[in-house]
Amino acid sequence: MRKHLVNIDTSKTTPIYKQIYIEIKEKIDSVELTENTKLPSIRQLSMQLNINNLTILKAYNLLETNGYIYKKQGSGVFVKKREKCLYFEPPKEVLESFKGGEVIIQDNIDFVSGTPSKNLLPFDDFKEITIKILEKDGVDILTYHNTKGYDKLRYYLSKRLEQTGINISHKNIQIVSGAQQGLDLTLKVLLSPKNNKIIIAKPTYHGAINTFRKDCKIFTVNLENDGFNLDELEEILATENINFIYTTMDFESPTGISWSEEKKKKLVELAKKYKVYIVEEDCVSDLFFDKKPCPLKALDTNDECIISIKSFSKNLIPGIRMAYMIVPDELIQKVISAKFTSDISCSGFNQRILLEFLESGIFDKNLEKIRKIYKERFSYIKGLLKDSPLKLEYEIAGGFNLWLKLPEEIDVNKFYLSCKQIGVSILPGNVFYLDEGNLNYFRLSFAAADENQIKEGFNRMEKLIKKSSKKS
Amino acid sequence: MRKHLVNIDTSKTTPIYKQIYIEIKEKIDSVELTENTKLPSIRQLSMQLNINNLTILKAYNLLETNGYIYKKQGSGVFVKKREKCLYFEPPKEVLESFKGGEVIIQDNIDFVSGTPSKNLLPFDDFKEITIKILEKDGVDILTYHNTKGYDKLRYYLSKRLEQTGINISHKNIQIVSGAQQGLDLTLKVLLSPKNNKIIIAKPTYHGAINTFRKDCKIFTVNLENDGFNLDELEEILATENINFIYTTMDFESPTGISWSEEKKKKLVELAKKYKVYIVEEDCVSDLFFDKKPCPLKALDTNDECIISIKSFSKNLIPGIRMAYMIVPDELIQKVISAKFTSDISCSGFNQRILLEFLESGIFDKNLEKIRKIYKERFSYIKGLLKDSPLKLEYEIAGGFNLWLKLPEEIDVNKFYLSCKQIGVSILPGNVFYLDEGNLNYFRLSFAAADENQIKEGFNRMEKLIKKSSKKS
Repeated sequence: MRKHLVNIDTSKTTPIYKQIYIEIKEKIDSVELTENTKLPSIRQLSMQLNINNLTILKAYNLLETNGYIYKKQGSGVFVKKREKCLYFEPPKEVLESFKGGEVIIQDNIDFVSGTPSKNLLPFDDFKEITIKILEKDGVDILTYHNTKGYDKLRYYLSKRLEQTGINISHKNIQIVSGAQQGLDLTLKVLLSPKNNKIIIAKPTYHGAINTFRKDCKIFTVNLENDGFNLDELEEILATENINFIYTTMDFESPTGISWSEEKKKKLVELAKKYKVYIVEEDCVSDLFFDKKPCPLKALDTNDECIISIKSFSKNLIPGIRMAYMIVPDELIQKVISAKFTSDISCSGFNQRILLEFLESGIFDKNLEKIRKIYKERFSYIKGLLKDSPLKLEYEIAGGFNLWLKLPEEIDVNKFYLSCKQIGVSILPGNVFYLDEGNLNYFRLSFAAADENQIKEGFNRMEKLIKKSSKKS
Repeated sequence: MRKHLVNIDTSKTTPIYKQIYIEIKEKIDSVELTENTKLPSIRQLSMQLNINNLTILKAYNLLETNGYIYKKQGSGVFVKKREKCLYFEPPKEVLESFKGGEVIIQDNIDFVSGTPSKNLLPFDDFKEITIKILEKDGVDILTYHNTKGYDKLRYYLSKRLEQTGINISHKNIQIVSGAQQGLDLTLKVLLSPKNNKIIIAKPTYHGAINTFRKDCKIFTVNLENDGFNLDELEEILATENINFIYTTMDFESPTGISWSEEKKKKLVELAKKYKVYIVEEDCVSDLFFDKKPCPLKALDTNDECIISIKSFSKNLIPGIRMAYMIVPDELIQKVISAKFTSDISCSGFNQRILLEFLESGIFDKNLEKIRKIYKERFSYIKGLLKDSPLKLEYEIAGGFNLWLKLPEEIDVNKFYLSCKQIGVSILPGNVFYLDEGNLNYFRLSFAAADENQIKEGFNRMEKLIKKSSKKS
């Protein structure tokens, strides 16, 4: 007699649909079910197991969402090829503009960079501060600094965080060379081959996807206008042994949305309930237009489940390569060791320059200036969008990332390549997805483009759309 | 009938002793032979297989060298516990002085630091150059720089390397934040869970051991006064699927020895023969006393098997966190990607300061000065050693690392801890070994101690030895 695909146990507390999901998933993971194997239809399985159609449908939907199976119209449901479902690659031409992971911007209108254009970088302040540090700190600048980071900077940051409701000791702060290093250290500390399942949003920051691809098994949760779809999140947390949830909170790439405070709280609760870490990358929350958003870390009352990575690249100077991590007690020693084996320590010179920026108040003054400019630019863009074939998907309350929708008939990859030809750089939406994304969106960042450039950029894009629409 | 432990095949070209080694090794690796299993005696196995005693002895010696078996006086030969043979941990008190991988130096005589003492660091030059760069390069300093490194610096370095016989394109140069990052990127690029066997010297740089411990299966080869024992090296290369050989060449930590040019050539030949990479870390070869040693990379005529990591921490300024890698064509794109996911790019400011140091000739002038001082200090120490209970194990021709031998009766761990109490920092020999090291050696670095401090340090150490010798 043929063995049943699934055996359910009604005495268990696990819901039936989850039992079905887990059994099939494990058979696929262990290659007992190989790729392109046809699964029984919903009706067949429902009869075999003597349970409701809808329960099977729910299990199959979850399997499809997590990339285990695919539906073929009129033929049925099949096991998906593992590589394909895990590693979506954008078209080759698109990839080529990311050589070595870099975004190459040779075009004259830059809607890609997330860093202020040169004229907004506080160079005069930087020069003054650097000379001051050379005079004040002398040869101490040139020695090796502590692996954890320059102590005075760590103290200062812990005091500054207090004002935002985050009460942590300087001992929980690790200075790093940019947020990307924070992510890299996090992976070194949390990940192991046997415990490598993580959750990210779709869409999410493409740099994070690239970082996680090699060593993680990635699950995705839809992003809504106020944060993750938390039902989807809990589904995965309840059925998979997840290591950590990676997320950004406010105004981040690519959509620019902000999480509601309610969802932030719920996220922390879920992380605690299922004993997983949250890895939060924060590069632009300082760039709010009117109201400072509540930091996620402030909601982690027992200081146990969040690693926050906070960058100075977008809110001050990218070239200074400075960021810091807030790390729970039980992980901090491991993070310090990982920093040591990664590059010993950060440049003491750069750390001292950063501290002087902060202590002197110049950092805050500069922030005020950028906030005002970005708010004005966003309002300017909203004016342009009124009569545009481009649609804004989400309102933003800070930052510089916009998620724009193209008319249905236009393919975003082709649009991206055509834009390059007319000197406009954007990022096509699908680079922000692990699996094939929604092909009608693209990210537009206005950090490096002033109003004239924005106007010219929109003009060129709209002409292109009109031409393409006529053709198709 | 009992199955034979080993089956040999005389028709194979593999020498008999290697066949025996490989068969037993594989049985241990696959846990067919579990820890503490007694192996047949040499005589028994020799009779069983009908071959010479000495052939069995050779196989057993190799198994012992590589940590597969241990001999127990009077009882026989046993399978070694795998963790124990791979991961030697120095005594807890010694480890505690390396918290988070750092060497904590609170003592007033510093024989640990490998970086010039503050008064030897070129601070005035640094200040002048920094101000010049601020004037000259302006706001460009503050932007993101290329992941590969600042192009002008890469061009300059490739030209400079030409003068030392290394002919490579700037395309093969990756700028990194210190040599440790070079090692980290190398591991990211070369290592995989299935291909993680590497070879290091015993003794070798302790930072490298710590870096490799987590993810590598490490084999060790004895270091002689002119480089590796190459017979031991070839034994391992012939019997194990090695990924890379990690080594330093000239004046390096902890022994200060130089490889002979003959052995350097042979090493490159062996790497090519067995198709493995050599990962060479070079921090002090510039600090020769009289004659510049031939760089290993200059012997890699087809530019295919060596990754060289060259640091500016010991020969210029540690705090600037600058080093570079020379990478073969087939690996360079992977290294760039690894750099990107590690920390995007190095600080452009620091790269520009380094370039100015090099182009202005100040770097070379500074080198001359340090070389002269280190040579004088070494000669001064040789004078002190004439009537000392401490013995110099190897003459050195450059650098600042000395490998000193204590009288037989003194335990180096106890000596290290007692030295700390009397304000003298050294590094005990066993931290430079993967397995338990020779307990009679320690490393003394004279980079950060001037002649007065050296004299005082030797006085204190010798008094301690006299006291300890009396006690024992």
